[in-house]
This record gives sequence, C-alpha cells and structure tokens, in this order.
Amino acid sequence: MWLHTSCEFVFDIAVPTPFVLMLRPRSGAQQWIAREEYRLVPTVPVFEFTDGYGNLCQRLIAPPGAFAVRTAAEVMTADCVDQAPGAVFVEVQNLPDAVLSYLLPSRYCESDRFGQMATEITAGQQPGYDQVATIVAWLRNTIRYQSGSSDIALSAVEVNSRQSGVCRDLSHLAIALCRSLSIPARMVVGYLYGLAPMELHAWFEAYVGWRWYTFDATQAKLKGGYVAIGYGRDAADVAVFSQFGPPVHPTTQTVCVQRIQAEDT
Amino acid sequence: MWLHTSCEFVFDIAVPTPFVLMLRPRSGAQQWIAREEYRLVPTVPVFEFTDGYGNLCQRLIAPPGAFAVRTAAEVMTADCVDQAPGAVFVEVQNLPDAVLSYLLPSRYCESDRFGQMATEITAGQQPGYDQVATIVAWLRNTIRYQSGSSDIALSAVEVNSRQSGVCRDLSHLAIALCRSLSIPARMVVGYLYGLAPMELHAWFEAYVGWRWYTFDATQAKLKGGYVAIGYGRDAADVAVFSQFGPPVHPTTQTVCVQRIQAEDT
Amino acid sequence: MWLHTSCEFVFDIAVPTPFVLMLRPRSGAQQWIAREEYRLVPTVPVFEFTDGYGNLCQRLIAPPGAFAVRTAAEVMTADCVDQAPGAVFVEVQNLPDAVLSYLLPSRYCESDRFGQMATEITAGQQPGYDQVATIVAWLRNTIRYQSGSSDIALSAVEVNSRQSGVCRDLSHLAIALCRSLSIPARMVVGYLYGLAPMELHAWFEAYVGWRWYTFDATQAKLKGGYVAIGYGRDAADVAVFSQFGPPVHPTTQTVCVQRIQAEDT
Amino acid sequence: MWLHTSCEFVFDIAVPTPFVLMLRPRSGAQQWIAREEYRLVPTVPVFEFTDGYGNLCQRLIAPPGAFAVRTAAEVMTADCVDQAPGAVFVEVQNLPDAVLSYLLPSRYCESDRFGQMATEITAGQQPGYDQVATIVAWLRNTIRYQSGSSDIALSAVEVNSRQSGVCRDLSHLAIALCRSLSIPARMVVGYLYGLAPMELHAWFEAYVGWRWYTFDATQAKLKGGYVAIGYGRDAADVAVFSQFGPPVHPTTQTVCVQRIQAEDT
Repeated sequence: MWLHTSCEFVFDIAVPTPFVLMLRPRSGAQQWIAREEYRLVPTVPVFEFTDGYGNLCQRLIAPPGAFAVRTAAEVMTADCVDQAPGAVFVEVQNLPDAVLSYLLPSRYCESDRFGQMATEITAGQQPGYDQVATIVAWLRNTIRYQSGSSDIALSAVEVNSRQSGVCRDLSHLAIALCRSLSIPARMVVGYLYGLAPMELHAWFEAYVGWRWYTFDATQAKLKGGYVAIGYGRDAADVAVFSQFGPPVHPTTQTVCVQRIQAEDT
Repeated sequence: MWLHTSCEFVFDIAVPTPFVLMLRPRSGAQQWIAREEYRLVPTVPVFEFTDGYGNLCQRLIAPPGAFAVRTAAEVMTADCVDQAPGAVFVEVQNLPDAVLSYLLPSRYCESDRFGQMATEITAGQQPGYDQVATIVAWLRNTIRYQSGSSDIALSAVEVNSRQSGVCRDLSHLAIALCRSLSIPARMVVGYLYGLAPMELHAWFEAYVGWRWYTFDATQAKLKGGYVAIGYGRDAADVAVFSQFGPPVHPTTQTVCVQRIQAEDT
Repeated sequence: MWLHTSCEFVFDIAVPTPFVLMLRPRSGAQQWIAREEYRLVPTVPVFEFTDGYGNLCQRLIAPPGAFAVRTAAEVMTADCVDQAPGAVFVEVQNLPDAVLSYLLPSRYCESDRFGQMATEITAGQQPGYDQVATIVAWLRNTIRYQSGSSDIALSAVEVNSRQSGVCRDLSHLAIALCRSLSIPARMVVGYLYGLAPMELHAWFEAYVGWRWYTFDATQAKLKGGYVAIGYGRDAADVAVFSQFGPPVHPTTQTVCVQRIQAEDT
Repeated sequence: MWLHTSCEFVFDIAVPTPFVLMLRPRSGAQQWIAREEYRLVPTVPVFEFTDGYGNLCQRLIAPPGAFAVRTAAEVMTADCVDQAPGAVFVEVQNLPDAVLSYLLPSRYCESDRFGQMATEITAGQQPGYDQVATIVAWLRNTIRYQSGSSDIALSAVEVNSRQSGVCRDLSHLAIALCRSLSIPARMVVGYLYGLAPMELHAWFEAYVGWRWYTFDATQAKLKGGYVAIGYGRDAADVAVFSQFGPPVHPTTQTVCVQRIQAEDT
C-alpha cells in the first residue's frame, strides 16, 4: 500500500540547543520512499550522518524561540507483514557478525536478567519464530497496553514490574525476553497505518529463519502498513530526537498517516 | 541559494536487467535536501544500501520495455564555494585514516604515473591549496574542455594524451595530478546551477588545510550552486547508474536545475 | 614501558558451547603490540571479525571437556598516562559523529538518571576535564573499591545504591555521571601493570579537549602501564568472553603482567 | 597445516618518510593466527587502523638511516584449498551489498575493456565457477608466468599486451576478465608455502556459489598453504607498503615460509 506520513514537532527553545534528529526514513527491503520532505522553521544549518545502525541522523542547533521540525513522506510498504511460523532458531555460531550485537543486553533491555522467565514462557515451543510468537502472545495477555506515549522510557525490568506500558515499553520487554533465549532482537521506531490515537509507534524485529521478522505486541493481529524510521538496540538508540542541555519537550507533536493512491507521475 | 534539481533517464530494456543507481543526494555539510522525489515507472522493488563512500545506492531489476527513473530535489546549497588560497598541505602522517585511500591510484586516475609532471606544473607553489589551484589553472589552459557527456570514461593518461575531454575527464586528470603530490583528491558527481548545456556534472575535491575543498577545472571562476549526488575515487565509483549484462543506454536523459525561492511551509 | 601480558581461562564445558571472545589487543595510538600469542587447547576453528567499536572478536564453539584459552602479548605502552587539567568541554554540536553514541545511556550506565547528581558533584568546576577529574575524586571518596572481580555486572544505579564495587562497577558509575553532563565516556577493559591482586582491569575514557583521555577511579594516582583489549559503551560491549546457552564459568583464570626489557630482535 | 611465515624489509631512508604498512595477517575463515611478531628497528611510534577492506594497516614515519620491518607469524591454514566445479553464478541482483564493489573496474583491472574477450574465452562454460576456472586455464596457457617480483605494477590491459607477467600481473588480468562477466573478483596478497623462489605472493578470489573461492593462475594445481595478508580490489589497495615522498625501495627483502608442527603449548 502507498502511505503518506507526516510528523511535526514544535519546540519552545530558551537557549541555543543541540539536537540529533532521526526523522528520515530510508528505503529498504520493506519500504520504498518515493517522496520526502524535511523542513525546519526557521532554517538552520544541518549536518547529516549515518549512525552505526544505518540510520540517517540530522545534527543541528535549535535557536531560541519557536522551532518547528516538519517531515513528510510518500512510502510504498507491504500490505501484509511477513509471518513464518516454524522458522528456525539460528544457532549463535551461525549468526552473521553484524547480528551478534543484538544479542547483548542494552540500556532498556536487561536480557541478562530474564533467562528463566523466558524459558518458562516459551516452554514446549520450537526454538525460533514460535518462541517469539509465544512471547508476544504472553505479553498481550499479561502486560496491559496503554496507547499514547510517555516521556520516561522504562526498562524491561521496570515494565515487568508495573505490568503495563506503552508500545515502547512492551517492545523493550519482548526484546529482553528474546535475547535471553539467544534470539537477536532489535527495536524499530516509525509509523503504523491505522493506529489510534495516531502517534509515532515502536515495535520490534527478531532474527529467526535467517532474516529479520516484524513483531508487534500491541496489535492483536499483525497487519501491514508499517513504515520504519529507525533501528537500534532499544529506545536509547532510536530516539527520534535527542537533545542536549536543559530538557526541552515539544509543545506540539502531530503525527499523521494516510493511505494514498500510487501516483502516476 | 535554493535549487530545484531534476533528472530523468528513460531506458529501453530488452531483458530483465540489474541496475545499481546512485541518484539520491544526501544532506551534508555543504547542502541540505529539503524535499526529494524518486519515481520508477513502472514501479519495481528497490533495495537501498550505503556504499563504502557513504553514497545511497538503489538496487533493482529493470523489466523489459520502457523503464523510467525520475528524481527531483529541493536543495539549499552555498551561494559561493569556499576557497582558501594558502591552505596548507597536510603531511601524509597527519591525514585522517579515512582520507588515506584517496591518495591511491584508481581506475581512471593513474596517479602513479604523474609524479614528475605534477611536480613541474606546480613548481614554485606552496604545498597545499595553491598547488591544486595551479593544477586547475594549468588544466584550463592546456586541456580543451568539451561540454556535454561521453559514453566512454577516459583515464587520466588517455586524457593527457588527447589534450581534451568532458568534465569527468578533466577531473580525472586533476585528481591524478593531485594524488601524485600526496594530496588526497576525490571525484564528485552532481548538479551545477547555470551549466550550459545542462547535464549531470563532475568536479573534484582536494583535501588541504584539514578539510575537503571544491575545485572545478571546467569553470573559469568558482561560483556556488553545486549539488553533490555521489563521492568516490573516480568515475568507476560514482556512476549514477551501473548496469550489468548486455549494455543499455538511456534513450532520453533530461537534467534540469532551477533557482527557486525558499519555501515558507 | 614494555610489558608482557598473559591471560589464561580454562572452562569445563558440558555441551558444545558458542563463544565470542575479545582477547586480542590492537595496536593503537596508545600502545604497540610487538608480539602476540593466542592458543586454544584443544584447537577448534575460529572466525574473527571486527565489531562496531573496532575490537577484534573471535567466534568459536567450545567442545565438551576442558577448554583452555591462552593469550599473551608484548606491548609497548606509555610510562605515564596523559593528563590535561583544564582541557575544554567539547560542545555536543562539535563532537565527531563517531563519538556521539558515547553520550547515550547504555545497559549499565543509566546516564538519563544522573543529571542532577552529576551537576551537584561537579558544582563550581570548569566544564570538561576538570568535571571528569572531580567525578573520579568523588568516586574515590564515596564508593568503596573492592579489588578482584565479580560475576554479575551491576549498573550505575545499583552501584550508587550499594556504595561499593569492583573496578567495572566504579567505571559504570563514572561513565553514567560523565554522560549525564554531555561528556562522551566509554569503557575500556585490559591490563594494568602493578595491579594487586592481578586481574583483568576496567577503566574509562572521557572525550574532552578534542580527544579521549584515560581515567581510573580505582587508582589514587594515574600511572602508566595500561594495555587496552576492548572498548565499548559499557561491560555489555566489552566482555572478554560472551558465552551462549547454559552458563559456563572459568574453572581457572590467570592473569599476569610483567615488565620486560625492549627486545633487540 | 601449520606454517611459520616471516618477512623482513630493510630500507635505507634519506629523509623522514611516512609509510603505510599492511603486514599483519588477520585470523579469518581460512586461517588462524596463533602467534605473531611485528618488530621495527629502530622503534618508532605506530598507529594502526582498519581500512575499508578490513585489513589492518600500520602508519609510521621511518627515520633516516637503516630502517627494518620484521614480521613473523605461526598460522594454521588449510591443507587443501576449497574447489567447487559447477558452483553457480550469483546474479548481480542477489549479491550481498558488500560484494558489489568488486564488480567495478579498478586501477589495474580495467574490466570495462574485457567484455568480449572474456566471453570468447569462456564460451560454452556454465556461468560461475567453471568460467573462472576456464579463465585461469587460459591464462596459464597464454600468459607466460615470470616468478619473482617487479617494481612497477602493470594493468590488465598492459599484461594482456605483453603476454607475460609476475603473479600480481596474472591476477590483475584474471580479475579484469571475471568482473567483465559480472563475477566479483578481488586480489589477495600473502604467503604461499612451497613457492620457489620464495617471495610475497599474489592470487585472487572470485565470488561464485555464494562465497569467495581461491584461484591462482600461477599454479598448475591448487594446493593448500596460503596465508592471506591483505584483500583489495587490486594491487593499489593491497600494497604491503605504501610510501610517500621521494621513492624508497627495500635494500633487502627476505620472505620465509616453513612448515611446523602444531605447538602443544
């Protein structure tokens, strides 16, 4: 399907504030960016670089006053997300080098503390895709999903203790559980068509059957309509904005995803 | 200045043909991409990756029949290119690691064969920026610039023997001469505002005074209005399209660069 | 000074166990590896790769039975560690791209939770090197250093709550405090000449004054004799061995560092 | 088999001369480095980095006078090189991203000029491994192999015109022919057990059947005993020493490869 995505942040800046933004989706195996806009008001110099995960990041200094970041894209993405019940567990010794780091614990995914719990949740399952699907089902039954967003990221241990969380929190717990079973897992931030209320969304991918598969503990049934903006080990790596110095929060944040017809340009 | 750039290639494809395209300019220190379009007609699956030089490359298989690639961008770029007469030569031992490979000879820049010639051309110059400027002046006086493009890339040795060439050829000779003096040099492909006739353009950068500076042996006077699409060691690395199998050439190729007003979106 | 370092791990393996080892020090700006050995008994196939931090990592499957890993090196390293009181804070917008990720919170360094505490500890200090030195002094006065090693890595929050820790723990807290002040900080694992009892050691580096400087909260006075094996965001990235499947701990672990004369080979 | 390799260069240096050396073999899928030495006489500061191909490179400034570089290693390498007649041609669209650059022409491998010749040589062969084997057989029958080394690297076009060459030259022509058939090919520099007279050796690898295979146009029959030091597009990338400024050649160059017993350390 073709989607039109847009995202606007407006900040009220007191002192010149350095930002690293991650708001430029890339064309990849799962999505094709046919059109894209990235506006800053007022215009300021921007330097873009590719981070260690392949994400395009924008560095700038926001000037005092109202500072708006507006991005939009026309994206072709899959109608249905690939699913592969039975896809095999890939033995650690056979994983590609670049995938290994997604086995390590990270800021919000303390996978070193979830080994026993993950083993119990997935008891009786075939190693691989089915373990991940069982973790997702367990999360949906156990952890209360709160739509919307939250300012403070929680770690998997904290989410497990609260028994509730936003999409980011559920992803963190799912990722920690997967990694504790030696299944590489990573976080994705982006858009999901049909999400209500519409917000930026977070989900995760697990590496089984020799490729990355999409999973989403917030959705009863995996549909298509995902547009990825950033990939990383957890929310620390894929913040759509990282800001340094005295904290600044957006005064307005607007996200919009609409289905469009393919253009015949 | 704000520029609107566009580029269209139409190919007449006989058999399914793999392509690697390099047609997505990146935001960098010198330019900011505010809007961008990338259309393929007909639509085909595309995979994008970042090559070893940081360029965004698009892989696809062109289907039989007419196949069009249309890209466009709105870009903020400098009104004037930075110039720095007197900027120092950076001793090889002090160059950043990532710059070292731009000292090596490459397919079209046989710098290992130009040591004596470069020394003679730049006799009496201060090592660094002034040597490069002298090479550019020598090229303008010596090698006849033919506007337009050519199908076959020539190497520096061949250009030097012919004493004429298109923008790509002049860049190759300039790069070979710089490298033979231990000055890192790299090729850039992109757009230049005001070029007549309008075509994709090639120029080069040399690393002196601890940064990359822009040079263009085809222009009497360096102006602004450059939009880079790709960087590499020479034309082999920065082909805007590489195509594999039986050769296919564009039946039409249209390039357009216009000055626009900054949008107040 | 010239040092001879050696390290032996012996594991008692029950089932074939995949390992990722990080035990090959690299020659870098601070050290030169003149001789090196890396023995596995029994010999097994090994694949080596460079991780995202530039560390050389060795992948293998340990066979059942006793499995020994023995490494040794002759290393030239500085007699004195560089120190630079007054070295400036580098504004976030001016940091090299590759350094930015060392500002983010990580598994064991929850820098997002230490902003106020770091500000209080460093009140009155010049931003930059002096802040880091003050953090190190505060740690030495406040957190009790336990020599030796521990199996379970603690996070900065946990170390701060316990008020004691091994070298790795002190480093985690120091790193978290630095990052919360927007000073990039990273963990180093390696050898330290003269450490008693001799063990693998952990310390940290902070990026101030436009380069990385060495700090060590476990030492009253910074001396030379450091040999780095691995760099990373925290202990999750620089485990000298990561092992997957049922936990396996070394039955013996021997570390030795001796001063030697430069060889006249 | 276990091999002991050693290599000594002695230079007579007139003025301080920057060098980039590539003399540290890495442990990889095909070889394991159990012991390694790297001595410089006199000792000078060295900085090591990993180049874009994964090779470990050493940067230093050689001081005036005699300057010796001595390296040695104990290496486990295969008794027999893998061969795979019939291994399939991998369609360009299916090649891993990182392999694509080995399809491009490079300084000494003008693959853009060999399409017709390669097609004729391999007429009737199955695409893939068999084409490469046919190219190697053709080279052995057509181009006279001169053992020893030569100072000046020749390009594939030049080698084809001379009809003779050293190992490096034959590899360049083989690589150019492979790439012109859309088969990725790369150069390897290293040691070969049993070579007479003993010198550093050059051979090549081609990517067919989803992996890199070793080929050597200088050997009637592929045996084992290869130890790779560096990989690259051609000799420009894998010079064991690159030196800048007035040319300096080794006054002595000694290479030694001996079979040893596996150590029971």
